[in-house]
Order: sequence, then C-alpha cells, then structure tokens
Amino acid sequence: MHNLTLVDVSPRDGLQNESQILSPQDRVHYIQKLYAAGVRHIEIGSLVNPKAVPQMQATEAVIEAFQDKAQYPGLQTYVLVPNPKGLERLKDLTVDTVCFFSAGTNSFAKANIGMSVNESLQTYGAMVAPVKERGSRIRAYVSCMTHCPFEGDVNPQQVMEVLEAFDQMGVDEIVLGETTGQGVMAQTNSVIQECLQRMDPLRVGCHFHDTYGQGLANTMGAFALGIRSFDGSTGGLGGCPYAPGAGGNVALEEIIYAFESSGLETGIQLGKLLEAAQEMATLLDQPCRSKLCQAMDAKA
Amino acid sequence: MHNLTLVDVSPRDGLQNESQILSPQDRVHYIQKLYAAGVRHIEIGSLVNPKAVPQMQATEAVIEAFQDKAQYPGLQTYVLVPNPKGLERLKDLTVDTVCFFSAGTNSFAKANIGMSVNESLQTYGAMVAPVKERGSRIRAYVSCMTHCPFEGDVNPQQVMEVLEAFDQMGVDEIVLGETTGQGVMAQTNSVIQECLQRMDPLRVGCHFHDTYGQGLANTMGAFALGIRSFDGSTGGLGGCPYAPGAGGNVALEEIIYAFESSGLETGIQLGKLLEAAQEMATLLDQPCRSKLCQAMDAKA
Repeated sequence: MHNLTLVDVSPRDGLQNESQILSPQDRVHYIQKLYAAGVRHIEIGSLVNPKAVPQMQATEAVIEAFQDKAQYPGLQTYVLVPNPKGLERLKDLTVDTVCFFSAGTNSFAKANIGMSVNESLQTYGAMVAPVKERGSRIRAYVSCMTHCPFEGDVNPQQVMEVLEAFDQMGVDEIVLGETTGQGVMAQTNSVIQECLQRMDPLRVGCHFHDTYGQGLANTMGAFALGIRSFDGSTGGLGGCPYAPGAGGNVALEEIIYAFESSGLETGIQLGKLLEAAQEMATLLDQPCRSKLCQAMDAKA
Repeated sequence: MHNLTLVDVSPRDGLQNESQILSPQDRVHYIQKLYAAGVRHIEIGSLVNPKAVPQMQATEAVIEAFQDKAQYPGLQTYVLVPNPKGLERLKDLTVDTVCFFSAGTNSFAKANIGMSVNESLQTYGAMVAPVKERGSRIRAYVSCMTHCPFEGDVNPQQVMEVLEAFDQMGVDEIVLGETTGQGVMAQTNSVIQECLQRMDPLRVGCHFHDTYGQGLANTMGAFALGIRSFDGSTGGLGGCPYAPGAGGNVALEEIIYAFESSGLETGIQLGKLLEAAQEMATLLDQPCRSKLCQAMDAKA
C-alpha cells in the first residue's frame, strides 16, 4: 500500500488565479467531472472575502452541492477557511477537511490573509477546537517554503517555526507550499528533510507550482523522501492571470501519469481527467496549460 | 568539481522538428547567440539527407562558420553523422564530436536512419576508425530507451545490447535518449542503473523530451544516479510541428535553472539564453515552449 493522496486544488488555487469568474454552478459541474474521473480529494473552494477573491464567491453553494455523501461515495472535500468569519459562513455545512493558511514570511501572510504570521497562528489556534467539534480534519498550509514573492529567499527556520506552531495546536496535516514556483528540488527537499526531523511523513503534504518548470521534479523528489500527499491542479490551472500560458500549479495529470507509469495506482482515469481539463479550458477560453494535456490533445 | 556537461541540441534536434526551414545563416546567428550566452557544447546540425530533413540542409555551411577556434574559445561542436555518406560530406571540416544514432528498436531505427539496429551498428562500427582519424570524439545515441513510437514499451535488454555494441566499437560516450517523452523517472532511472552496471557514469549522457512534462524530473533523477552529461534544447525547441505548444526536448533553461539554484555553476547566463530563445521563437512565429521562458517573459 503506497498511501498516496492526491489533492486536486484546481477548483480553489486553480480558479482563484484565473481572471474569469465562474458561477458556482459551473464550479460544481467541474468538480463533478473531477469526481467522475476518480479524483477523491478535492479542494472545492475557499471562504475568503469575495471582494478580495471574487473567483471564490458563493463557495457555500459549492459546498452545499456536495453534502450528500451517498451521492459521492469516497469524496473528501477540502475547503480553505482563513479566519473565524469564514468558519461562521460554514454554518451547518459539512466539510471533510478545513484548510488553514499561513506562510514562511510576514509579507506573504499579510498580502494573502491580511495577518502577520503570528497573528495567523493565534487566529488558527483558536479555531482548532471549533473545527474539530464540527468533525473536520485540519490541514495547515505553510506557504513560501523556499521563496517569497516579496522577500525572496526564505530562511527554513521561519518555515519550521510555523510548522511547529501548527503541529502543537493539533492540526492533522501540514502542507509545505512552494508558492512562487522558483524553488528547485535541492531546495524543496532540504526543507522537507528539516520538516521530517519533526513530523511523520504521512502527516506532511506538498504543494508545488510549475511556474519555472520545476513542479514535477520537486514532487518526485519529495516522494523519494517519503512524502505521500501531493496537491496538483487539473490542467495546470492557476497561472497568473496577467501571463497567458505561464505555469500555474503543477498539473495533476502529470503527477498521475508519473505515478501510474511508476506502477503506483492512483484510481484516477487520465482520459476522463483530461476531458474535464479541456472542458474547463474551453470555459475559460484559454489553452490547457499542461504539457501532457497539450500532447494528448495534439495526438487526438 | 561537478563535471557537468550541458549539450544544447536546439540547433539540431530542436530545429529539425519545427515545421519552418531556416537558412544556414539564421542557424549560424542563433548558435552564435547560444555561444554568447555561455553555452559551450552545441549540437550544431546533422548531415542527414536534406530531402528527408530539409530543416538540416546545408549543415556544412553551419559547420564551416565555426571552424575558427580562436573566434569561439571553448566551443565544442557536435554534429550528427548518421552514415558514411554524411561523413563524406564533412570533407576537411573539423567537428569536435561526431554523433552516431541508433535505437532500442528496429522500427525506430528504420524510420529514423533507414537501417535496422544491427545494420546501423555494422555501419557505425566501420565509421569509428575514420572518425577518430579525423580527431573527433564519438558520441553514440541510443534512442527509445524506454518507449518507442512504433513498438511501445521497450525491453531494456535491447537497449543494453546496443549500448554494449557501441561500447565495444570504442565510442567515447553513450547517450540514452528518451525519445517519446513518455518515460517517467522510475523507468528512465531503471534503464540508467542497468547501463551503469556496464559503464562509467562519466561516459553516459541523457537526452530527455518533455512531451508529457516528465523531462526535468527525469534529468534530476539521472543526476542523482551520477549522470553528469545532459542534452537540453533552448526554449524547449523541438515539439511536433503539428502540435503548437506541445513539448519538445526538455528546455535547457529549466535544466540550468535547476542546477544553478542547486548550487552547481553552469557558466551559462540565463538572461542571455532566454533572449536567444525569444529571438528564435519570433523567427519561428510561435511562443517559446518552456514554462520558465513564459514566466520570465510575463514578468518582463
């Protein structure tokens, strides 16, 4: 048993970085396509301020659509809840995993969630009990594991401090996020190794971007170190809206292809996943970003 | 000393897979730009039948332009010479490294060089002495190290037989080529490990394509096994001419970025290399294929 967990973040980290704003209905339909392709871990949205991130507006309606577990056997929903206000919006909706979001640098935390790192840790510390009472798992992102868009190189010690704080407050899983796409395998592996001196590898996930073409190499490097939980984004969705064609998150299909060809079953059907990717690309009126998607498209 | 050798194959494997046909003058100008960026190992062309590969016509004129070593200190030229006819075309031109080209499958060898694998080995066997007498090193490609476009999965034993035959005839370096882009790290590493049971890692190079987004991960995997010679293609040049945007060779800039960020100096200036890539993309009237190039372009 390889314990592989692949989390599709395209409905959240993907769509929130695209310039077009989709209706909750379109987002639900897309998530249904991902589910039909065999994806079972899906970050379906984010309860952030819709004024700041209009792409994620009405995420409640998306969560609502996936309340009936009998309709979607095996589905694990992930929702980003950046503060107590977001938690209030959940009301009596059920979410399998609630995601917290801090960073290795104050500049990024402030730009992203409007709090310093310490403020965010205090905020999340107070949210652990209410989230657990709701019956949700907690997954905590530490962004900027190697690079920060504002501060450049990040001191791994800062990342370890955030990680330790999350660990101590009792989150179930930590996700190390390489946010800028600038980190290469030697760098991401070095931070992961520091992390694994503190935590069991099965409680650590990795979230890589492919902006500079390093995402899959970083994923394979982390796998070699014992990491088994990876974020990916179907179609490589999530590039910068001002840079058509520029890479977003590492493409889930390229991760699946790599693992399946290595003999690790993912339970995800590549063909169906690529159909979902193409449908979304059409909706967003842009080409599918991943090399694999483009190659398969050209073949067909 | 890391012994890293990065061979830019964009003027050969890159351009020969683009639909447009450039003049030898344009190719020379492009190679000069690569040299100015610090690239020192360049596959400048191929002496194949110009009717079969019109993109490589008049390669003699390109070779001619780089005869004056004083003008290009440190430059190592590589030219693909697939048969005795190609060798005749060299006449009194000097080439630092002559490249032979066979494959792990008969189907690919026949389609690519018009000979079965055994025929090609006989042909090359007879070319070793004349090439060495000319003072050139010999680099022998074994294509289809894991997959063949015609035969699918390739038996590693077939690859080892070709490799051993090349070794016995006295070539200086073997290059394992993952031609289709379908091979993932677990597969390419497995073949490399078999190869390293037979040969010193410093006599082995790797040539990966990025069609399915696996090229850089394969490169990093091979590096971890001790391989120090890698082919790359500036701008990711070399996609299928019928698939705009589809991946070609792994982009040299993404390899350089990965190694430099890992603390290994390559002597190549990324900014200047990207300028060459952009200039070529403009000439070919297509976007630059590599993620890194697109991201840097969007930033600028």
